[in-house]
Amino acid sequence: MNQITSPQNQRVKEVAKLAKRSVRDERRLTVVEGLREAGHALANGVIPVEAYFCPTVVNPPDRPLFSQLREQLVAQPGVLSFEVTPDVFAKLAYRAESDGVLLVVPYLDCQLSRLPLRDNPFLCVIEGVEKPGNLGAILRTADAAGVDGVIVCAGATDIHNPNVIRASLGALFTVPVAEIPSAGAISWLHEKNIAIVATTPTATTRYTNTNLTGPVAIVMGSEATGLGEAWLAAAQLQVAIPMLGASDSLNLATATALLLYEVVRQRHSHPDVAPPMNRR
Amino acid sequence: MNQITSPQNQRVKEVAKLAKRSVRDERRLTVVEGLREAGHALANGVIPVEAYFCPTVVNPPDRPLFSQLREQLVAQPGVLSFEVTPDVFAKLAYRAESDGVLLVVPYLDCQLSRLPLRDNPFLCVIEGVEKPGNLGAILRTADAAGVDGVIVCAGATDIHNPNVIRASLGALFTVPVAEIPSAGAISWLHEKNIAIVATTPTATTRYTNTNLTGPVAIVMGSEATGLGEAWLAAAQLQVAIPMLGASDSLNLATATALLLYEVVRQRHSHPDVAPPMNRR
Repeated sequence: MNQITSPQNQRVKEVAKLAKRSVRDERRLTVVEGLREAGHALANGVIPVEAYFCPTVVNPPDRPLFSQLREQLVAQPGVLSFEVTPDVFAKLAYRAESDGVLLVVPYLDCQLSRLPLRDNPFLCVIEGVEKPGNLGAILRTADAAGVDGVIVCAGATDIHNPNVIRASLGALFTVPVAEIPSAGAISWLHEKNIAIVATTPTATTRYTNTNLTGPVAIVMGSEATGLGEAWLAAAQLQVAIPMLGASDSLNLATATALLLYEVVRQRHSHPDVAPPMNRR
Repeated sequence: MNQITSPQNQRVKEVAKLAKRSVRDERRLTVVEGLREAGHALANGVIPVEAYFCPTVVNPPDRPLFSQLREQLVAQPGVLSFEVTPDVFAKLAYRAESDGVLLVVPYLDCQLSRLPLRDNPFLCVIEGVEKPGNLGAILRTADAAGVDGVIVCAGATDIHNPNVIRASLGALFTVPVAEIPSAGAISWLHEKNIAIVATTPTATTRYTNTNLTGPVAIVMGSEATGLGEAWLAAAQLQVAIPMLGASDSLNLATATALLLYEVVRQRHSHPDVAPPMNRR
């Protein structure tokens, strides 16, 4: 494996530039840090362009997984692998703890056509999300709730932001994701006969008092501005989460989790059995 | 009002020292930043020791609220109020956007006896929480779910951490909170005949398949280590959240929200009415 020992190395500088969205979008490349995150990417068919390893910063319990991942990548055709010193790795990594592995990977294909719809589709739509941490948390929860896919519309953050990948713990690679303006998403959902359920504080129907067992897209807006008019107008149903305290809102990722797991509750309701684990 | 124009001012240096837990614990003082957060503190009877105002950094839409808060505090006996320059404020503030107001407030009384139990108690217990952001998010959700109180046990983070107050958006002041070791909390819950419902991935009962309408304490453990043995042994019921994807866990604040809102759903289940809004 090639070695890099200087933080001034040109390749290292190029990776650091991927922190900027404009550079990522131009090159259609992003950065995946962490063993778990990299593992999810590889298990879901992502082929990295470059892989950086820093054995000296790996925690002892993580070493077997680290070695396995490194062997897999070194053997993979088309992947440029490098072993780097801790000071070089510190220059590459966004996170304080990156488990000694960092991949440069191509952008995912985020067309709507990528979403694999099942018989009774269950989708999640996020409009106008502002914080990468929130979008990542939503992807993590969407994975756990077993959605068919997440549609991201008109957000200030892009799904390939390394902080989204990090906050998702790699769920960006395990949940099908589409990125498309709201108008296109609305047409597509109508065409597929998927009910649009818009979550908005002004609704008079509580989210737990309605039938969510059919084909459904749960739609969430931003904390700051709420859902846009187009979604409210297109919705078959508007629902609210009861707020029983002094606060007037929940965190967006929290509110999304409540809605997605209400669908899970209604769809998988059979009193005397263990929960269906790890369907995927 | 007194003016402070030098970041080297001794009083400013003393406030900055409150970033350290040991200093906070010794003085039993902490810092509240932000208009919304300060408003919740004052509305719930907190009397600051000191108040710092920086009018030049306030966003135009927030100016009326800022002026009202300043008038209230300047008129309040026992509060030392200061107007500071932006460079002084930058030295005081933890956050990039603090809305131009920062209070030094006494520690809350976090005895269990502070929790005001209603007829049918609904409590939330958090053991071993690691991140201030998670604890703050849990307080925000607990407020919205209308819990009687939150009991914090054996955590690496303390409830008076300024980042907890910030992430809670001031809910630390709107939700009764107790801080006590696990053994004391368990005895107290037994004594009060409140059922302990422990959330753990190894449980075979799903959280939505059990009756949570009676006196209940929802108990959550840390993401890294799970719930301690004492809680599992003391629990009347162990429940799990179904995980249907590739991930093996949810974020702690997300998991807590699902449990608390399942209690809300079961307790306030009446199909054809609007949700009970703003009970507090």
